[in-house]
Amino acid sequence: MITSSSNSRIKNVMQLTSKAKARKEQHSFVVEGIKMFLEAPIERIKEVYVSDTLLKRILLEKGSLFERLQQIEYEVVTDDVFVKMSDTKTPQGILCVVEQFSYTLPEVLAEANGLWLVLEDIQDPGNLGTILRTGEGAGIHGVVMTRGTVDIYNPKTIRATMGSVYRVPFIYVENVQLAMAYMRELGIKTYAAHLEESSPYDSFDFKEKTAFLIGNEGNGLKEETAKLATAYLKIPMEGQVESLNAGVAAAILMYEAKRQRNI
Amino acid sequence: MITSSSNSRIKNVMQLTSKAKARKEQHSFVVEGIKMFLEAPIERIKEVYVSDTLLKRILLEKGSLFERLQQIEYEVVTDDVFVKMSDTKTPQGILCVVEQFSYTLPEVLAEANGLWLVLEDIQDPGNLGTILRTGEGAGIHGVVMTRGTVDIYNPKTIRATMGSVYRVPFIYVENVQLAMAYMRELGIKTYAAHLEESSPYDSFDFKEKTAFLIGNEGNGLKEETAKLATAYLKIPMEGQVESLNAGVAAAILMYEAKRQRNI
Repeated sequence: MITSSSNSRIKNVMQLTSKAKARKEQHSFVVEGIKMFLEAPIERIKEVYVSDTLLKRILLEKGSLFERLQQIEYEVVTDDVFVKMSDTKTPQGILCVVEQFSYTLPEVLAEANGLWLVLEDIQDPGNLGTILRTGEGAGIHGVVMTRGTVDIYNPKTIRATMGSVYRVPFIYVENVQLAMAYMRELGIKTYAAHLEESSPYDSFDFKEKTAFLIGNEGNGLKEETAKLATAYLKIPMEGQVESLNAGVAAAILMYEAKRQRNI
Repeated sequence: MITSSSNSRIKNVMQLTSKAKARKEQHSFVVEGIKMFLEAPIERIKEVYVSDTLLKRILLEKGSLFERLQQIEYEVVTDDVFVKMSDTKTPQGILCVVEQFSYTLPEVLAEANGLWLVLEDIQDPGNLGTILRTGEGAGIHGVVMTRGTVDIYNPKTIRATMGSVYRVPFIYVENVQLAMAYMRELGIKTYAAHLEESSPYDSFDFKEKTAFLIGNEGNGLKEETAKLATAYLKIPMEGQVESLNAGVAAAILMYEAKRQRNI
């Protein structure tokens, strides 16, 4: 049992939680909570930490946590140490270090009749996580992100994905123009959510290969990115609303595509 | 010019920012930033505070801020004091105290062929604000909230509404069952977003009086509230997604209603 938060492994977990650089160097990220532990691909789990109190409960209940812990190594830590490692207000008592994913662009774009998102410089970690969660729900096949997008392995993002980070393929690209040229080659139609003169989103047919371009929360899409799109579309707005939250805009577009595809 | 943050008026603004109780007692709330000041209904503005630096800029530029400040009293404060009053990381240098709204239920539900939301115990201030913003965009006519819903005058909520708080009528009700009975009398069809056996949201007709019931982020709608609804509906989800973010669910439903109404 680890009893001190100055233990080098514990300190490393805290680094992985707080620093994108450490995550990148170690090609790892931290996930917290029972659901996130149970849904993690087991072959990617590198380290598991369980609090003393939770372990006692697990050994009594012999449920799905017990079963999974039989299959891998884990470290027990005191409740005090766990609270210090944890990034949440009400820690559940389990946390693990997981190997990062590394999809290639062809893998992300492989689906025959796919639906994708291209995210440009999304800044809010919670927003990005919610977009992934909604995306899995809407049945998208992958997410392409610019380098300026917040780190998907940020603990707030991970939490907001509610596990979708394990299942939705994604990639950060250096050059979004190049990525879009490649998408065009694959026959993917790209739609830029754009505030200028454009047609309403529900006037397009999203049943074939489709990608939605979503811009930064404050500034929207960059002009040079938007103009590479197959078409501009707008989400009509009443009242004095000038724009929608990026996550909300993405949700409306993805669910319109899902609606059309299910009809 | 106010030069000290121990000035009683400044201390009161800080109380109004941080305490729901103070807001309630004074029937006031605080809004920050240029856009929120410019869009505030002028007859509701009770106090205005401008930082020294912003005021100098306003007097030079003679733009819309200048025009509005000509019409009302305002107080100049030093930049240091403004930073202390401000609830944001990068203060814009203007904030005001605004009188709270007081709509009655018949006022909120007055629209002949309206579209409404009923929110039960939404906890996240940002979520509530985003829902109002999306709601105005989708053209809803009002929001009915349970007492357990977070305070709409919370600064985080206000910020996330991007001004919609001024324009979308809303009311907190003590007894949501009674409110729903009244809605039924008015001929409003209520739809509960529900995870159990129910029909997909896009199989309903939302062109007549419609209200969507949205539950708490963690627990969804209470059973006793859901069962008062005219019908259950579900937003279909792919993958392993168990639920959508409350703001996302509300957005998808409201925009489906808007889509149907515009056809």
